[in-house]
Amino acid sequence: RLRKLIWDRCSTVVTLTLIAVTIGCIAGFLQIFTETLVNWKTGYCARNWLLNKSFCCVEKEVLSSQKSPLLTKRQEMECVNNGLWATWSFGPLPFLIFFSLSVLFALVSTLLVKHVAPMATGSGITEIKVWVSGFKYKDEFLNLSTLVVKSIALPLTISSGLSVGKEGPSVHYAACCGYVITSWLLRDALTFNKQADYLTAASGAGVAVAFGSPIGGVLFGLEEIATAREYTASALWKSFYVALGAVATLEYINPFRSGKIVLFNVTYDKDWRVQEIPVFIILGIFGGLYGKLVSKWNINYVHFRKTYLSKWPVQEVLVLVIITSSISYFNEFLKLDMTESMGILFHECQTNDNSSAFTHRLCQLDENTHMVSFLRVFCSLVIATVVRAILVVVSYGAKVPAGIFVPSMAIGATFGRALSLLVERFVSGAGVITPGAYAFLGAAATLCGITNLTLTVVVIMFELTGAFIYILPTMLVVAVTRMVLSSSGTAAGIADQMILVNGFPILEEDDLGEFMSEYTARDIMAEDLITINDDIYLSELESLIYDTSQKSVNGYPIVQNQSEETSGKKCVGYVLRRHLITKLRVSETSSLDSNLTLVSFTRNLPPPTPDVAGQSLLSFKDIANPYPVTVKPEVLTSSLFRMFRKLGCKAIMVEECDVLKGLITKKDILRFERTKREEIFGPRYRFNA
Amino acid sequence: RLRKLIWDRCSTVVTLTLIAVTIGCIAGFLQIFTETLVNWKTGYCARNWLLNKSFCCVEKEVLSSQKSPLLTKRQEMECVNNGLWATWSFGPLPFLIFFSLSVLFALVSTLLVKHVAPMATGSGITEIKVWVSGFKYKDEFLNLSTLVVKSIALPLTISSGLSVGKEGPSVHYAACCGYVITSWLLRDALTFNKQADYLTAASGAGVAVAFGSPIGGVLFGLEEIATAREYTASALWKSFYVALGAVATLEYINPFRSGKIVLFNVTYDKDWRVQEIPVFIILGIFGGLYGKLVSKWNINYVHFRKTYLSKWPVQEVLVLVIITSSISYFNEFLKLDMTESMGILFHECQTNDNSSAFTHRLCQLDENTHMVSFLRVFCSLVIATVVRAILVVVSYGAKVPAGIFVPSMAIGATFGRALSLLVERFVSGAGVITPGAYAFLGAAATLCGITNLTLTVVVIMFELTGAFIYILPTMLVVAVTRMVLSSSGTAAGIADQMILVNGFPILEEDDLGEFMSEYTARDIMAEDLITINDDIYLSELESLIYDTSQKSVNGYPIVQNQSEETSGKKCVGYVLRRHLITKLRVSETSSLDSNLTLVSFTRNLPPPTPDVAGQSLLSFKDIANPYPVTVKPEVLTSSLFRMFRKLGCKAIMVEECDVLKGLITKKDILRFERTKREEIFGPRYRFNA
Repeated sequence: RLRKLIWDRCSTVVTLTLIAVTIGCIAGFLQIFTETLVNWKTGYCARNWLLNKSFCCVEKEVLSSQKSPLLTKRQEMECVNNGLWATWSFGPLPFLIFFSLSVLFALVSTLLVKHVAPMATGSGITEIKVWVSGFKYKDEFLNLSTLVVKSIALPLTISSGLSVGKEGPSVHYAACCGYVITSWLLRDALTFNKQADYLTAASGAGVAVAFGSPIGGVLFGLEEIATAREYTASALWKSFYVALGAVATLEYINPFRSGKIVLFNVTYDKDWRVQEIPVFIILGIFGGLYGKLVSKWNINYVHFRKTYLSKWPVQEVLVLVIITSSISYFNEFLKLDMTESMGILFHECQTNDNSSAFTHRLCQLDENTHMVSFLRVFCSLVIATVVRAILVVVSYGAKVPAGIFVPSMAIGATFGRALSLLVERFVSGAGVITPGAYAFLGAAATLCGITNLTLTVVVIMFELTGAFIYILPTMLVVAVTRMVLSSSGTAAGIADQMILVNGFPILEEDDLGEFMSEYTARDIMAEDLITINDDIYLSELESLIYDTSQKSVNGYPIVQNQSEETSGKKCVGYVLRRHLITKLRVSETSSLDSNLTLVSFTRNLPPPTPDVAGQSLLSFKDIANPYPVTVKPEVLTSSLFRMFRKLGCKAIMVEECDVLKGLITKKDILRFERTKREEIFGPRYRFNA
Repeated sequence: RLRKLIWDRCSTVVTLTLIAVTIGCIAGFLQIFTETLVNWKTGYCARNWLLNKSFCCVEKEVLSSQKSPLLTKRQEMECVNNGLWATWSFGPLPFLIFFSLSVLFALVSTLLVKHVAPMATGSGITEIKVWVSGFKYKDEFLNLSTLVVKSIALPLTISSGLSVGKEGPSVHYAACCGYVITSWLLRDALTFNKQADYLTAASGAGVAVAFGSPIGGVLFGLEEIATAREYTASALWKSFYVALGAVATLEYINPFRSGKIVLFNVTYDKDWRVQEIPVFIILGIFGGLYGKLVSKWNINYVHFRKTYLSKWPVQEVLVLVIITSSISYFNEFLKLDMTESMGILFHECQTNDNSSAFTHRLCQLDENTHMVSFLRVFCSLVIATVVRAILVVVSYGAKVPAGIFVPSMAIGATFGRALSLLVERFVSGAGVITPGAYAFLGAAATLCGITNLTLTVVVIMFELTGAFIYILPTMLVVAVTRMVLSSSGTAAGIADQMILVNGFPILEEDDLGEFMSEYTARDIMAEDLITINDDIYLSELESLIYDTSQKSVNGYPIVQNQSEETSGKKCVGYVLRRHLITKLRVSETSSLDSNLTLVSFTRNLPPPTPDVAGQSLLSFKDIANPYPVTVKPEVLTSSLFRMFRKLGCKAIMVEECDVLKGLITKKDILRFERTKREEIFGPRYRFNA
């Protein structure tokens, strides 16, 4: 009894903490594992070949002291020079090892996904969004085996060098954690809506650990995942808590051995100038165009894949990784891990400070540099931009865990850096602008372009780097990108577009076309309803449930028994099929004679006590909703739409003078809307799933 | 025609831009004006007594170059030494000038408020929140004269040294800007909801310019202002755009002459340690207790003021400022402007770096310092904490523009800094912890304690200082504060508590007590309705409107003419009183014979053309809502509550078998809930407005 009381008090906090710590631990494992695999492609640790570069090079005594990234960089070089970390170097050996390991990693990853957990493929953001908006997708989508496979296949995919990112899959495995843990700990008191809060919080934490950006994660949950549901203060607070806990756990694990969770940690000393604003606008426009075109092409390619490649998912991944790694090996910015290459691109070239250990050749260009070497660097950046963009289009959606945020950012970063070279050489002269900041802003632009998120992108970029003084330019770039997107009619991020492509049911504002204004509830409602009488024999009920198991019936209106003869059916409630089945299972009906047991949905009855005639009574009142939302048949679709979206109800009864005329579900209205839209405008995409 | 087309396309962007620029300009003016007034209290500029310290000391050539706050500080000292800026120094003259200017500023401010725009008093956040949630407060609350008075009285109040802040009033004047500009530019196409979006965006921008924190401002709009309404993607985007524009304008104006919008710009080099977590938790608990007690005491004091002081608002302010300035003059941390004193408290003592020009005596304490001088500094901080807290309790709500955020932060900062002295002396030893960070975290805790906001507080603190590596501790402190608050039953910020104290109508989640579950629509509905027939003579309509002008009727159900004799009234629509009055005005009904003109709410009629008998027809169909939300009398209050909140409807019809039985408005349900609550629990506060 006391135990129950304590548990009631603490269950939320315990569950949230457990989710947070689990997500943090998985994220830590992922980062260490990914780094190890990536490092193996170029070298090995002399003292223990299992260690990755960071662990191999780290010296125990410096662990606790505070280190700047520059120091780490220098330390790393020393480590290589000392022979602690050996790189492959024998004829074509480096290329062969790089190539074969890439292929091997991708192969293992895709085989795992294909044979163990097919749901672990792709990004998962779309499906989670649909789920929390009220449509339970598939149980396997968030179960334990998906969680395990996603957590193992993701590092393999990343380290295979495919142009895919880890944030979408991070959201997915985090949501899996949320689902598995809540299903286990809170199984008694868990409603769908309550679980959706936990899933939103966990998804946010997924982004938070992927980017080391706790606030960005919370905002992601708010701006991307929970758009189609109400975001309450308690959901916000859950997100905040889980994101904090997950990032703190990750920081405690310290996977980079640098004591930092910030991926890049660049500090720009030079402030920006008003004259740079046109360049920022160009970056914003690039982001908008990138978002528009890449999502369009990717969706077309997804269609192509479905039509022609669906039988050979593993072969497709193999071809992809072969092409990717052969091309990437010969371009400096493609060869490196995306985060590493972004780290270099974002970096400020510190010309004044001689102690700087950061001496990338990007920073050694000035007016006196020969045109050829300038062009070599410049072209290398442009090629990286274009090739990566093409690779993203064909890779996102392949049968491996794959996100699109980080590759998009990498594309923006190379573009921005290329632009900075042009500006520095032909407009401003060296040492005036901060070239790294252009890469940073380019990354913000493409991230916004592909996701159509504003606030989240600014906060993530800001937390990712700590580039504090560039907050206004970042906001400006994001605003321009957003304007380009909305003026070109692409007012949705790739996750939202995928919802339409896959035909998922989700209601969001602005979804309703103008043409719907002429239709009313009468046009949409389903009229041949399967209803349940408010007093019904158990046997009837069981056969009814069995009979309708093939049809996609989610719930039954409850009607009054006696009124059937008179004017029509009077609706006295609504019961969900799923609740009915659970209730039948827990009521232990097997001991009762189902032909004599009466089930009532409206009366409060004593627990079943067989009377003389063997007849007993069961009350199912607790699972019935006695006052479902009702409307008149003349109500406009826009009102229906608002009710579904805002009230979160599963079904709306259509009544005329208290007589049940029909029933409308969310799916009914969406199906109706999409059919009508196609009749008028033709298919929204050239194909329809 | 073309002009109209262009305007339709651009009106939103033009309006938003104009709002943003106006807010930015006012904020710039405010900051310069405040600084000037504050500076006059201690000295004057030798070359032009009108200039404030920043403008007086700034040298033209260094304006564009990038400057650290340390440099600015050093420059300022040089400026004083050079005699450019002269401080008062003659016997008791400094005190007299300080004192009399303080009194003068406060007096002017309160007289302005009292005689010109009484609505400009206090913070305004509460009223704006009520407004955007759907209840138009009073027109004067957001009109031009309130805007002007608030903008002038605010700097006067701040510089009088009263323990009040500028962010609440900033929200208010920003909302005024939004209201005035939208009312003027968009007058044709402005719905209440649309305007509420603009008001939310403007309020966010108010916070953004007050703190130099664009993202924090957007989040403030989301987390504080718009809780009781739906926050759509388009509202978010408006907030984003306005906040960006306003802060960019402010930065362009450059009121601090430092090229920075960041108020404090501290960079903590030292990372935090795990061992410090207990101290962070203490800070969080302090924040929670502070929030709980100060809001409770302040509300009690507000009641006291209403009962005993309401006749002497000016005298009250005078007494306050006399007490405040006499006490403040003798405490270093109270004497300074709150932002300036926080700047000092947040600062990291740079012990390693000799070039540091920051040599406050706070930083000269180490283990060898004599206990007496240690105690002197320590007590000075503790006294500042306690005195400021008492002053906040009695000042917030006086008849001047007054916010509570900044004073709360100042209290947290002095407490945190005092705690850091203890930790440094008795636990860790010197040079281990970062004392400034404790002040920073203390400020975050008290800000969270008084507002009950989480995400917003973290982002604001973070943007305010750029103290990037302290993001996890900040989140931890805020989480602890939030837990303390919610475990002590104070789950609302001071703005929300004021809503209850003032008896404003607003519906928020969790507002509904459990005891309401037994009541249904039948208990709440108003049954004696004033209805309008769907065909009605103009004269009847006019007299109906005239007759009901004294009663607080917001709208009329429209009922079918013929059905009256039979079973009862059949509702065919709902029309708002305000729309009806506007429509009557624009229809130019004066030329028609009102006894012969028939008004129809359901039929589409041709424009009024007097026929032979002089009888004409008017269609008012466009202003009637043909399908108002209807419910059955048995519907539970919780469902009604959800409908009001989520659907944003003004009134719900109660119908039984298509016969209108009653009407429920938001106010009805709130009044019912509060009456019942008082019957059961007694008054929520010891008094009721």
